[in-house]
Formats: sequence, C-alpha cells, structure tokens
Amino acid sequence: MHARNPRIGIIGSGAIGGFYGLLLAKAGFDVHFLLRSEYEAVSHHGLTVQSAVHGRLHAKVNCYADAAQMPPCDWLLIGAKATGNPQLAPLIVQAGAPDAKVVLLQNGLDVEAQLRPLLRADMHLLGGLCFVCADRQTPGVIRHQALGTVNVGYHSGPGDDGGRRLVEQGVSLFQAAGVSSVGMPDLAGARWQKLVWNVPFNGLSVLLGASTAQLLGDSHARTLVQALMEEVMVGAVACGHAMPAGYAQQLLSMTERMPDYWPSMYHDHVHHRPLETEAIYAAPLARAQSAGCHLPRMEMLYQSLRFLGKNSEGAML
Amino acid sequence: MHARNPRIGIIGSGAIGGFYGLLLAKAGFDVHFLLRSEYEAVSHHGLTVQSAVHGRLHAKVNCYADAAQMPPCDWLLIGAKATGNPQLAPLIVQAGAPDAKVVLLQNGLDVEAQLRPLLRADMHLLGGLCFVCADRQTPGVIRHQALGTVNVGYHSGPGDDGGRRLVEQGVSLFQAAGVSSVGMPDLAGARWQKLVWNVPFNGLSVLLGASTAQLLGDSHARTLVQALMEEVMVGAVACGHAMPAGYAQQLLSMTERMPDYWPSMYHDHVHHRPLETEAIYAAPLARAQSAGCHLPRMEMLYQSLRFLGKNSEGAML
Repeated sequence: MHARNPRIGIIGSGAIGGFYGLLLAKAGFDVHFLLRSEYEAVSHHGLTVQSAVHGRLHAKVNCYADAAQMPPCDWLLIGAKATGNPQLAPLIVQAGAPDAKVVLLQNGLDVEAQLRPLLRADMHLLGGLCFVCADRQTPGVIRHQALGTVNVGYHSGPGDDGGRRLVEQGVSLFQAAGVSSVGMPDLAGARWQKLVWNVPFNGLSVLLGASTAQLLGDSHARTLVQALMEEVMVGAVACGHAMPAGYAQQLLSMTERMPDYWPSMYHDHVHHRPLETEAIYAAPLARAQSAGCHLPRMEMLYQSLRFLGKNSEGAML
Repeated sequence: MHARNPRIGIIGSGAIGGFYGLLLAKAGFDVHFLLRSEYEAVSHHGLTVQSAVHGRLHAKVNCYADAAQMPPCDWLLIGAKATGNPQLAPLIVQAGAPDAKVVLLQNGLDVEAQLRPLLRADMHLLGGLCFVCADRQTPGVIRHQALGTVNVGYHSGPGDDGGRRLVEQGVSLFQAAGVSSVGMPDLAGARWQKLVWNVPFNGLSVLLGASTAQLLGDSHARTLVQALMEEVMVGAVACGHAMPAGYAQQLLSMTERMPDYWPSMYHDHVHHRPLETEAIYAAPLARAQSAGCHLPRMEMLYQSLRFLGKNSEGAML
C-alpha cells in the first residue's frame, strides 16, 4: 500500500493533464492516465516533461485506452478541452471511486455547471485554474516553459460544508507535487480572474496570429489587450466578483516576464481543432449581459473567433 | 478642338482611376493618365475594363510616366490610395491648369484636409465618393463587377460660393460618361456615410480573410458588421452629420445584392501594400473622440489592422 493513499486519475492526455499527472506520479502518488490518441506512444515510452523549471522529467506511467480498465480513482483531474466535456462525462463517471473528487483543469466560465448534471450525485466537482505555460510537443512529450500554479475552488457535491475540506485536500495534493496552489473561496470569481488573461491572449493569438511577446511588443495590440482585460474585469464586477486592484497591469507584467508564449487556442486553431469559444467567451458574455453589462470588444472577439472557427474546424479532415 | 472642352487628368492607375478615366475617355472627354508601374503595359496595350454593366471597354489612351509631360488639366481625378497623397501632391500641382479642380476619389475622412496645404491656392479641392465594385486584374486591365456611382462634394478653394457651381460641373462630367452622380452639400457627412460601408467590410476582409458574401453569410460576422455600421453612424451623428434612417439595413441589403466582393483593403493586405487605416479608421475615431464619443469595435478593428499591417507591409520586398 502506498504511503500517500489517494489514487489519482488523469483524463486528457494533452499538456495540462500530462504535466500535472507526471509531477504527481513523480511525487509518489498512485496516478493513472486515460489516453486516446497518445495511448500507443505513452504506453511504450512513458511520459516526458521538458521543463524550464524542473529539468527533464520522465517516467513510465499507468495508462489506459479504456476507462473500464482503470482502477476506481479518488481524484480525477480533467485536462481535456472544455469542448469535450459532454463526451467525457461517462468516462469520468466510470473511472471515479465512490465520492470521487473531479477537478476541471479548464479555462472559461460555467464549465462545472455544464458537466454537473452528467456526473453521479455522490461525486464532488471542483475547478482548478492553471497558470502555466506548457504545450504538447509530440505524443507523450510536453514542453513546460514557465509558471505552474493551480488554484482550486469547489463547485458542488454531496454534503453541505461548501467543500472547504476538499479544497484543502486538493491544494495539498498539488503542493505535495511541488506545484504552487491556493484555495479559492469564490470559484466563479477565480474563473473570471483567469479570463482576464485568457480572453485577450487566447483570442488575439488566433485573430492576429500572434504570440504574447508579439502582442505586447506592438503599441496598438498592447492597448487592445489592456482594453480587453479591463472589459473582462468590468464584466466580473457586474456579476458580483471583486477583482484585485491593478490586476490587469499585474497580468501584463507577469506576461512580459514569461517566455514568449502561444496560447493553447492558437494551437487548436492551427490544428483545426474546436476552439473553446463557448467557455471562454460566450458564457461570460451571457453572464455579463444578464447583469446588464455590454462588453463590445469581447463580443467582437467572440464573433470573429466563431467565424474563423467555422471556416477552419475540421478543415484538415 | 474637342466638343467637350474640360481636359481631365487621372492620377493613379488602379481600378478607380482606370475605370472612371476610361468611361470619360469613351464619352469623348480629353483624358490624360499619369501612370507609374502600369505605364509600359497601358502605353502599349491601352486600358481595358471588363464590366458586368458596360461589357468590355477598351481604348488606347494618352498616358505619361512624368507629370511634367502632361498638358495642364482642368480636372484632376485622384484614384490612388489616400496613403500616397503627400507624395502625389507635387505631381497634382504640376499637372493642374490654373484654377484646376482636384477631386479625391478616395475613402476615409479628412483626406482633403491633409492634402490641401500641399496644393496651390488657386486650386479647388473636391471629394468624390465612389460606390463601385471594381478591381485591377493585371496592368491596364480592370474588372468592374457592379455599381459605379460617384457622389461629389466641395472641400475648399478660392472664391466664396461654397463650390456649388463646381460640384454641379463635376456631377455633369460623371453623368456625361454614363456614371450616376449627385452633389453632396456636406462632404464630411458624405464621407461618414461611405465609412458606414468601408469600416466593417474593408477591415473585416483583412482581419477575417473574408469577402462580403462570406461575412454576410455567417450569423456572427453579420452581427458584427451591423454593430460596426451602427457605431460609425453613432460617430457621424456625434460629429454633427445626420445619417439616413435605416441606413445600415439599406447598405446590408445593397451588399447582398452585389456580386461577392473583396474590398480593396483585402487586396492591399495580400499584396503587402500599405493599408488605408489612417483615413478609414484613425481620422474618424479621432473626430468621434473629440466629440466625446467612443467607438470600441471600430477602435479594436483599427488596432488589429495596425498590428497586421506592421507585420505584413513590405514583407514581399
């Protein structure tokens, strides 16, 4: 029996699931990966993270092509795109032990609300906001450029303690793996805060074909990034979530200190995969609108991405 | 001596100058073309317009590579991009007869104000708003897909009649060449009205890589086009120019009846030529801002185009 008893399942084999899953496995947790297209590569060669922070990490890992083969997991970290949640739900249900804790390591708003009705009533649902620069290089090989924090908040589940204990447990898991993590008492507020970064950088990386350094190095694009950040914060406040003072400036400075980065939406776009436009744009726009708040730049970005997505998605198929 | 006495000079050999110049020449006017890159082709083969309205038009024309060789012209129609006006000014001065009438067949706002100080005091300056779908196919060959109207307004010049007589003369010139034309008592208002079309379609054709039919055929892009149109009209009204009721809807319907069209800014972008971002976006945004009016979508489009322009312009050189 392992010293650290929780068994962790990782659903989604991209940069996020692979990175955190491997760090947890390296920390001695009992980690199991459900994989689809990467199954062959990972089952033969294991997982590799080439990290600017941790150096080169490599391990053989427990991996599965079929959720029915997985042992029941106490924690399930979902690293797949939010666009795939409806299809993933049955696998999550299958892989989860009784009272399993499901953590959505995804961007956007209302992703938990969308998934909740598809889970078992005994399952707890949490959100994890990842501040990390990582991308998948080849099957089973992930490049980690910078950062790594995962902030955890509770969404819903049985019992009425508001999930504080489970948030603490989740935070401890990540911290035990060397990952900086704090609990977020207001999950929706934390998701809005993450959107302040994702809304400008994800969308503009696609619309303007530009990386973070290219956007911040151009005075017009930089002003636009800032204006979008301010709009998201206006939306958050209108929806009742206070934002930290000077937060936009803080994110701009953080992004400037990061290595040049191409957000995941850019990779999705160039590979003709679905874009997370609903979680990152449509859901917060709808919330803001319900609060009587119009966010014209964000709306324009959403409309532009929908247009581009429609004309790109599946184009390689 | 020709029955129709005004001598007309055409500066700028693209679709606009070539199309209207050839129609005027075909109507019997004494027309002289100042050309640069197209001089060789046009001097050997003449000008050709392949028109969906007028059929195939062709003529040998008087053309010049050097403004000093042109006879003094009573009217000068400027069909070049507004971005080139400072460089063209000395040629316009050189080619203009005493009291010459200079007509800027250009899009955008304040293009006359920019050129005025570079002209002679005896010269009259007018604006011509072209509603025409035309593009240059190869040197000396222009495709005309639809429409053709030129509306004429007076900007400035010697005397104090407000240019009404000259506007009438200009309108008559175009009408004599079979071109629909009316005089515009408020040139700035007319330029704003034209912007209601140019702001969405020119910019989005570049940003989204899309033609008019593609934009109007997608519900998100169409909503964005409409929102941009409404913003331009808000700006116009804030600057004191009344807009016709239902004008945005009218333009949308007109555009749907047009053949599918790629605006000139799209061609400029793919050929790595300067974009007319200052005349079409920066100038009206500055006017609106002076009137206390913020146009966030239009500003976002401007910022995006400046970013894309900087990263594209001259890339082929």
